[in-house]
Amino acid sequence: MTVYNRIAAQDLGRIAALSDGIFAFAMTVLVLEIHIPDKLDIHLEAELWAGLAALAPRIVTWLLSLMTLGIFWVGQQTHLNHLSHADRDLSWLHFLFLACVTALPFSTRLLAEFITYKTAFLIYWFNIVLCGVSVMAGVIYADRAGLIKPDAPEHFSRAFRRRVIVAQALYALGAALGFISIPLGIGFIVLVQLNYVIAPRVPILFKL
Amino acid sequence: MTVYNRIAAQDLGRIAALSDGIFAFAMTVLVLEIHIPDKLDIHLEAELWAGLAALAPRIVTWLLSLMTLGIFWVGQQTHLNHLSHADRDLSWLHFLFLACVTALPFSTRLLAEFITYKTAFLIYWFNIVLCGVSVMAGVIYADRAGLIKPDAPEHFSRAFRRRVIVAQALYALGAALGFISIPLGIGFIVLVQLNYVIAPRVPILFKL
Amino acid sequence: MTVYNRIAAQDLGRIAALSDGIFAFAMTVLVLEIHIPDKLDIHLEAELWAGLAALAPRIVTWLLSLMTLGIFWVGQQTHLNHLSHADRDLSWLHFLFLACVTALPFSTRLLAEFITYKTAFLIYWFNIVLCGVSVMAGVIYADRAGLIKPDAPEHFSRAFRRRVIVAQALYALGAALGFISIPLGIGFIVLVQLNYVIAPRVPILFKL
Amino acid sequence: MTVYNRIAAQDLGRIAALSDGIFAFAMTVLVLEIHIPDKLDIHLEAELWAGLAALAPRIVTWLLSLMTLGIFWVGQQTHLNHLSHADRDLSWLHFLFLACVTALPFSTRLLAEFITYKTAFLIYWFNIVLCGVSVMAGVIYADRAGLIKPDAPEHFSRAFRRRVIVAQALYALGAALGFISIPLGIGFIVLVQLNYVIAPRVPILFKL
Repeated sequence: MTVYNRIAAQDLGRIAALSDGIFAFAMTVLVLEIHIPDKLDIHLEAELWAGLAALAPRIVTWLLSLMTLGIFWVGQQTHLNHLSHADRDLSWLHFLFLACVTALPFSTRLLAEFITYKTAFLIYWFNIVLCGVSVMAGVIYADRAGLIKPDAPEHFSRAFRRRVIVAQALYALGAALGFISIPLGIGFIVLVQLNYVIAPRVPILFKL
Repeated sequence: MTVYNRIAAQDLGRIAALSDGIFAFAMTVLVLEIHIPDKLDIHLEAELWAGLAALAPRIVTWLLSLMTLGIFWVGQQTHLNHLSHADRDLSWLHFLFLACVTALPFSTRLLAEFITYKTAFLIYWFNIVLCGVSVMAGVIYADRAGLIKPDAPEHFSRAFRRRVIVAQALYALGAALGFISIPLGIGFIVLVQLNYVIAPRVPILFKL
Repeated sequence: MTVYNRIAAQDLGRIAALSDGIFAFAMTVLVLEIHIPDKLDIHLEAELWAGLAALAPRIVTWLLSLMTLGIFWVGQQTHLNHLSHADRDLSWLHFLFLACVTALPFSTRLLAEFITYKTAFLIYWFNIVLCGVSVMAGVIYADRAGLIKPDAPEHFSRAFRRRVIVAQALYALGAALGFISIPLGIGFIVLVQLNYVIAPRVPILFKL
Repeated sequence: MTVYNRIAAQDLGRIAALSDGIFAFAMTVLVLEIHIPDKLDIHLEAELWAGLAALAPRIVTWLLSLMTLGIFWVGQQTHLNHLSHADRDLSWLHFLFLACVTALPFSTRLLAEFITYKTAFLIYWFNIVLCGVSVMAGVIYADRAGLIKPDAPEHFSRAFRRRVIVAQALYALGAALGFISIPLGIGFIVLVQLNYVIAPRVPILFKL
């Protein structure tokens, strides 16, 4: 007898398409959270400049979350590109990962609104941890279930896992620094992310 | 003469792409419904924790609907993966199914806001029934119209229909339990869904 | 010298993907417009039922626009499926068509809020006309520019144009009936659309 | 040892799919910003017409941003269509470009609300500059990194860059005109964009 669970969700393209929808929506929602100044408060060009300058905390958290999204978008697609096919467990692990991604605009709003609160910063960090753990679970599962393409680069899975572990260790350090000072913690995480975005051709940084 | 209806909508990829867009937005909208605490009410870390703890009903209904979306996303793609092509009737049946999916954030909001009302719980359950009925209609139609791939696993269609019927029977039992106690009904549906998400390797459960 | 305009936008897949995003978002936004009853007004199950029943005009306009979206989604993909490639003019005509589709949630909201006003009904109808004219422009252009697949069914383009013209004539009749009575006009358009959705196997209707 | 950065993000399809999601949401969000008149202010058909006429500044900025989106959507896909594959740097440059695109609804809202303020107009113009610079960076990078298809039209990259430079020079002229008069600046940019949308078969304009 054919059991439903054995034949479910074998299409990598559907995971990719759902992911692109989720990331596109998350990027858009992040900007929707930045409200323009109230017209009633503005009568001069200088007041409009001042009103826009007051958006700074929103813009910092927007850029922070934008980098987070970009890093995970690049990471997840690198993982998917090296798989030959999917199965239901892999689909569910990615669904879980995407659910963590959809929570990021919530955590970002919380951080922007309560930027002086450790609680908000820890929840934001925890969201990044959840994204990392769920993407890692997908990588480990794909390895065990034999879903990796035969022609994938040698040690592909190890390189990927090493990357996630190093990144999460650095984020955890950022979270620890946040207990001393929240701006210090956020600043450290921004620097870590900038390194992943720019991938400077400095050997020690490029290999992080 | 070429009749429009005979040549309309033969592309499975378009159904898949529309579906991924719908599921991506539905997942994102579910999180947008969870509002962060009001800044004016919060002056201490403990108050922020309390404010977040008060979001519990929203978070429970979010997780419930997230699982519902995931189960139908996996289900629908399993169905589509085994078809060779589409036609206009199949496209419309999936369009109908997706319209039911877009209604889920509405039902979820209603359930979160009126969690002690049987009416809200029944409407939520009815939304799941509509999703199940419309996906089932697509499966039955595809079978009759000869749209299933020749190399699909034997009894594919039967395995799929069996799955939908068992699931809907369990949801109906959950709805009936909701007449005794709403938390009991919701709890039962959560357990049923967790079983479908995790697909434990316990023969009796795996085959449900 | 290579002129940019000669090499721009030759990919049908990008038009299809943008379209599916637009339709998915429009379908989702239509539901977001249906607000749940205010919790402060509701104390009994019966009051919740009454509050939901009061949503009837919203639900009618939702179903109306859902059918409109479905009809144009099926229509546009039927058109695209029979093309061999795109060019910049075709891409812009579809972009224009999609811009008309994004306006539909606006027209729907206007109609739902001002359902007794001829102005709102005429703007809604005009939105359908714009969708029809722009999709028709794409069909005519593709025909002239030689973008149709060699193996497309004979008279494909003629069948498509005939469909659009008949549909628009019926919608115009609905608009005219709206001058006598708005519910009559809406009712007539709903019937026309139901015919296109269901495509009953009655020869005279199937061929409309 | 396999270094993560060398194997990351080689799939053009993912860039395309993320882009289509972003453009689809941006187009939809632009319309969501146009609010229908308040029901309490409207008692007659004539009042509804007047209420809709008062939306004119919103509709002008909507059309302006719609053309901006269309021009960049066509431009970016023309670029991507001529590449053989992606790498992590190209993916990040496109991610950056898309982040600029997600900011456009914000700039549009700002311009619509503060249409008499130079600050708002300059920020809107600066957003177009950022879109142009980031898409240009992708084109230059792809050229240097050898990502262009062997069969791409000769001088493809040069034709593309020329197009971006001419367009940005015209937009800069529009911004300069805005210092004399904001309506003049907006009007000039609208004309430039209309030329790119329609691509009239007038040699001097077609080659701009």
